[in-house]
Amino acid sequence: MAADPDHSPLDGGTPIRFDVDVAPPADGSTRARAGRMTLPHGVVETPQFMPVGTNATVKALSPDDLREAGATIILGNTYHLYLRPGHERIARLGGLHEFMAWDRPILTDSGGFQVVSMDELRKIDDDGVTFQSHLDGSYHRFTPEVSIAVQEALGADIAVAFDQPVRPASSTREQVAEASARTNRWAERSLRAHSRPDQALFGIVQGGLDPELRAESTRFMTSLPFDGICIGGLAGDETPAQREAALDVAVGLLQDDPRPRYLMGLGSPADLLEAVHRGVDLFDSVLRARVARNGQVWVPGGRLNMRNAQFVEDRRPVQESCRCLLCRNFSRAYLSHLFRAEELLAYRLATCHNMTFTLDFMAEIRVALRTGTFSDRLPGLRAWALLSGARASPVQPE
Amino acid sequence: MAADPDHSPLDGGTPIRFDVDVAPPADGSTRARAGRMTLPHGVVETPQFMPVGTNATVKALSPDDLREAGATIILGNTYHLYLRPGHERIARLGGLHEFMAWDRPILTDSGGFQVVSMDELRKIDDDGVTFQSHLDGSYHRFTPEVSIAVQEALGADIAVAFDQPVRPASSTREQVAEASARTNRWAERSLRAHSRPDQALFGIVQGGLDPELRAESTRFMTSLPFDGICIGGLAGDETPAQREAALDVAVGLLQDDPRPRYLMGLGSPADLLEAVHRGVDLFDSVLRARVARNGQVWVPGGRLNMRNAQFVEDRRPVQESCRCLLCRNFSRAYLSHLFRAEELLAYRLATCHNMTFTLDFMAEIRVALRTGTFSDRLPGLRAWALLSGARASPVQPE
Repeated sequence: MAADPDHSPLDGGTPIRFDVDVAPPADGSTRARAGRMTLPHGVVETPQFMPVGTNATVKALSPDDLREAGATIILGNTYHLYLRPGHERIARLGGLHEFMAWDRPILTDSGGFQVVSMDELRKIDDDGVTFQSHLDGSYHRFTPEVSIAVQEALGADIAVAFDQPVRPASSTREQVAEASARTNRWAERSLRAHSRPDQALFGIVQGGLDPELRAESTRFMTSLPFDGICIGGLAGDETPAQREAALDVAVGLLQDDPRPRYLMGLGSPADLLEAVHRGVDLFDSVLRARVARNGQVWVPGGRLNMRNAQFVEDRRPVQESCRCLLCRNFSRAYLSHLFRAEELLAYRLATCHNMTFTLDFMAEIRVALRTGTFSDRLPGLRAWALLSGARASPVQPE
Repeated sequence: MAADPDHSPLDGGTPIRFDVDVAPPADGSTRARAGRMTLPHGVVETPQFMPVGTNATVKALSPDDLREAGATIILGNTYHLYLRPGHERIARLGGLHEFMAWDRPILTDSGGFQVVSMDELRKIDDDGVTFQSHLDGSYHRFTPEVSIAVQEALGADIAVAFDQPVRPASSTREQVAEASARTNRWAERSLRAHSRPDQALFGIVQGGLDPELRAESTRFMTSLPFDGICIGGLAGDETPAQREAALDVAVGLLQDDPRPRYLMGLGSPADLLEAVHRGVDLFDSVLRARVARNGQVWVPGGRLNMRNAQFVEDRRPVQESCRCLLCRNFSRAYLSHLFRAEELLAYRLATCHNMTFTLDFMAEIRVALRTGTFSDRLPGLRAWALLSGARASPVQPE
């Protein structure tokens, strides 16, 4: 459902405004910047992390939990919602915001990542992708036009153009070039198909790890009238160094571009920090909810596995300084007991914590940027974010 | 942990006070009464329902959820907590209240129901019960002295004497008589073993469905200096009529007894109402959490199965008049989607609703009692509580 125009934070006629409040310093010590993205359902301070609500719910959390953790924007999965409960049903029920009772901004992805990732279950041609549902094996087809129609029905504040990502490290140059060229054509078709005036549309840069292809894709996407630029095809099977090199190519060409930059699918706090440093404004990842379900909670400088015997009588909170539902009320011993007893409350508490940890970390980064201390504080922030070994494991689509 | 004596609602020296504020009317139209049970951790208005926190958590709910649903006292399972995480560990961690972050009253059961229900895995003798853990098959032994020691370590406001329940309808008179006689001896041993001055101790009436044995057990238990009287061995395989007859025998003999009466293990709202009508003050049951996990939610006069196709596009809340987390925020369509997608939030929302439904129903009963309108409103309350077919299915131990 469209936001109430009387309460929209935007002036009439535009679905997004992006203000860079603190530009990167002239000395080139960092490309990090602080900004504000104003959308029909509210204002999002950047750099920002978007929790992923795959099935119109961020796993184990309620909207109140998300607000308490500090989430200002969440991501919805077009592929999952198209299959179940169906985008037309969600539209009849008032749109995704009303359906899931989340009144702040939402971004929907294009479905491209999910359908293209189904190696055995999909067939790509120039017009689109035919794929089988992971739920019942039924056949479906996504084209740029279908993806946009689904996203318009869902009614998020931000939609994303349909694309063909490839595995960055394990694809040939030819595969990357072909996918990038197709993504370019699909971007133009997505723009033509998009008609909802209260919804922003972001385009996706591809181009793998090859600097030339990455630059070519960046130049093409920025030439189109998108409202924001996604950097796709990373957070996959590449090394951090490879990712950072590709990122430097793309952001290097975006320096004078006024639009927000969104690196899709990343990841751990350490990964987010390095990408902010390289000029990225927005992130999403299912990693924190997934590790929480396995009993892993994040603390400054490390991670704790609550299934380990050492915590069964530990009276301390998971993190002394943390304001989350878990740390305010319960001990490590209690959380450890809940995981052993496989009680549902365990998953909610651990997810609340990891989400709060991440969102507070992003808030800390924004404070550093707004006070001009980011470069000085970078070593300290790196130590805080280091989850000894938790960095950059490629995440499978949810 | 003991309640802070500076904040205890009790005068020094006594762990419980029970006041009957509204006695049953002299015309004999009902034995229902309204009262207040004052305990170290707070005041419990009666008639009252106690949510069951099997593993030191009421399944799918946080303490905040319980408070919001209106819970003032919960039940902890001695058998489960003894096995995992262990009563001594809970004692070292500050007791059950601190461990699970629940600062209101708690009652622990004796473990008798669980260990005696394990047909193949236990052996009963006059001294106690030897049983195998359902977790790892290891052998354990409960005696009245062990049960009391475990409950004193857990530190609930109310402990319960160790007993031997039998299946009411499918046991012979000889089996019932033997179990009742043993329960009597175990009651005396439980009293002797109990030493915690800040913890009340309730005794359990047994005696099956035989009026003579039920009366004999009631007379014996009421002769002992317990702080309250549990009515056990019902809410099993008997019919409602058989249960109500046994209840009438027991409560008939308790009419001049000043102590609270607790019918163990019952059940649906309709069952609770009939038992209140027959003079019962306290209840517990795992039924509402269990049916919620299966997608069943309770509404006045009926029940809805959220897995049914009819709800997939139903924009109404589950219950228009309900103040719970689910009904305040979400549609039937959304809850139906969450169950189909097997999302954890479904279980929390449905349990919140069924718990709120039950606790609000008990509050409605208390209002009727305090305004002297209970007998007049009984037909209306019966219609409200009728969950077409959901009545009185025997519940297996959790």
